[in-house]
Amino acid sequence: MKVTVLAGGVGGAKLAHGFALCQPDVCLTVIVNTGDDFEHFGLRICPDLDTVCYTLAGLANPQTGWGRKDETFEVLQSIGELGGPTWFRLGDKDLATHLERTRRLREGQRLSEVVNEFCRGWGIRARVLPMSDDPVRTMVKTREYGWLGFQDYFVRHACQPTVQEFAFEGIEQALPAAGVLEALESSDLIVIAPSNPWVSIQPILSVRGVASLIQSKKAIAVSPIIQGQTIKGPAAKMYRELGIEPSPLAVAQHYDALLWGLVIDEFDRGFESTIKSSGIMVLSTNTIMHNEQDRHILAKKILAFSKDSNPNQPQRREF
Amino acid sequence: MKVTVLAGGVGGAKLAHGFALCQPDVCLTVIVNTGDDFEHFGLRICPDLDTVCYTLAGLANPQTGWGRKDETFEVLQSIGELGGPTWFRLGDKDLATHLERTRRLREGQRLSEVVNEFCRGWGIRARVLPMSDDPVRTMVKTREYGWLGFQDYFVRHACQPTVQEFAFEGIEQALPAAGVLEALESSDLIVIAPSNPWVSIQPILSVRGVASLIQSKKAIAVSPIIQGQTIKGPAAKMYRELGIEPSPLAVAQHYDALLWGLVIDEFDRGFESTIKSSGIMVLSTNTIMHNEQDRHILAKKILAFSKDSNPNQPQRREF
Repeated sequence: MKVTVLAGGVGGAKLAHGFALCQPDVCLTVIVNTGDDFEHFGLRICPDLDTVCYTLAGLANPQTGWGRKDETFEVLQSIGELGGPTWFRLGDKDLATHLERTRRLREGQRLSEVVNEFCRGWGIRARVLPMSDDPVRTMVKTREYGWLGFQDYFVRHACQPTVQEFAFEGIEQALPAAGVLEALESSDLIVIAPSNPWVSIQPILSVRGVASLIQSKKAIAVSPIIQGQTIKGPAAKMYRELGIEPSPLAVAQHYDALLWGLVIDEFDRGFESTIKSSGIMVLSTNTIMHNEQDRHILAKKILAFSKDSNPNQPQRREF
Repeated sequence: MKVTVLAGGVGGAKLAHGFALCQPDVCLTVIVNTGDDFEHFGLRICPDLDTVCYTLAGLANPQTGWGRKDETFEVLQSIGELGGPTWFRLGDKDLATHLERTRRLREGQRLSEVVNEFCRGWGIRARVLPMSDDPVRTMVKTREYGWLGFQDYFVRHACQPTVQEFAFEGIEQALPAAGVLEALESSDLIVIAPSNPWVSIQPILSVRGVASLIQSKKAIAVSPIIQGQTIKGPAAKMYRELGIEPSPLAVAQHYDALLWGLVIDEFDRGFESTIKSSGIMVLSTNTIMHNEQDRHILAKKILAFSKDSNPNQPQRREF
């Protein structure tokens, strides 16, 4: 069964890993947001791609969910001693990824080729694709500082500023990376991971041709909002600041026409009927992934759910 | 007393350190070769500047003479695991220098400003100046591979190819860094360190205005050739491959009109009279610097030598 997961950072990586644990029954492709990518010290840093790859390779830091396990920070400490910027916590092993990626990009390799070769080196069996080889930069308009680059907002300002609007610079010109549309087209199931709908999933959906292809396929999203909160990251805060009550319903309305089904946390079972009434299938289950087993179980439940057919399901209509 | 040292890598750094140990009696400026500089992983690497600064700061690896002491290689190991190039042995602390330097250069700082601020951070009291803020690249023409970038020749090919010619790309356009000509002009003594005459000192001397200023001042070179050999590096091999017998005499002839005096190793005392006959003052002494004390002693001997006046000295004439 061919499954394609759209993923941002930590939450997306965990669920992608859950599907990877279903291999070889599942043939997995992960399409990853690159809107968070940025240049730091002249290096191309791809936080979501790295989080997904490190997680799939078993190299991720289990405490943080991002970065490498058994990491050291020799370089960053010396940079600090020189008065350089240390707000982005570059570990030594992680830095090697950025250095070698940047070197290869400068030599003319495409990002998707670099990712592919890194994945092979790390023993990752899933196919990991950047959403695009072209530069896209997520910008966050904030009440306090105006437009900020995503990492500026996310890391330097620790998501404190109030968001007003998002923009994806370069998205008009960005072509889907080789394999992206083919993977979506040939998928039996497309899963929108529990990543931030505004800044992790929206950039992927905004790449030319992606949303319309998804609309023609069976797509299931997993709500990143649980009881009005997120496990990690600012999605719930963003909904609130944009005047939307954060809930699985808000997520359903967000993705709306793209969805065949939505997975919501069992704590949010109360939203099930409202969402179902718009014709979206709903699975209520535990969506919190504390460990590898949780990831695996959630992926298996989504696979089973995707095979559901409910004759009593109201016809699909938009909110 | 104002002393300006022209220096390349390890040998130059050691002697510069000897003069630094004479502070505050000596007011020291070190003008450093940047012809060895290169880009690696998109980073600006300045091997000679770093060797000089690390040595003056007491941060240099005492075993190798270059790189940092107590160094780790976490990043390089991970780069190797990704199949990246590891021929240039980038330590973690050293890498921090390259990353932060590159970041500042990209922000528009001049190399000399960056060096100045790094020196302050490292507690270096001497003034360290790159020969130029403009890019100069030493190229080595070899019998086996044609023209090679210096680091390619020096590190990757381990100085094995046979040299035929040198070129300093960009030297015509390179302006001396701010302070270089002023330091030379105001010097009571200019010391050409026991660095490689072909690839460490020649680039400095080729920067516009430098050689002619030195010719008008009291300049003393220290021969890097001892008993037909060097302590380190390919200078002797280069002389041989270019058809010149490596000796203090060859060094004297190399710098010729620039020199007031030459310091040769006591093992080479036999060359003293020949060199003196051309009007160059000669000091024969131990020039091998095993430890800090050796560096300090050699610097003090050079200072004393520079105050020599010999009425019987033949008039200065070129070879």
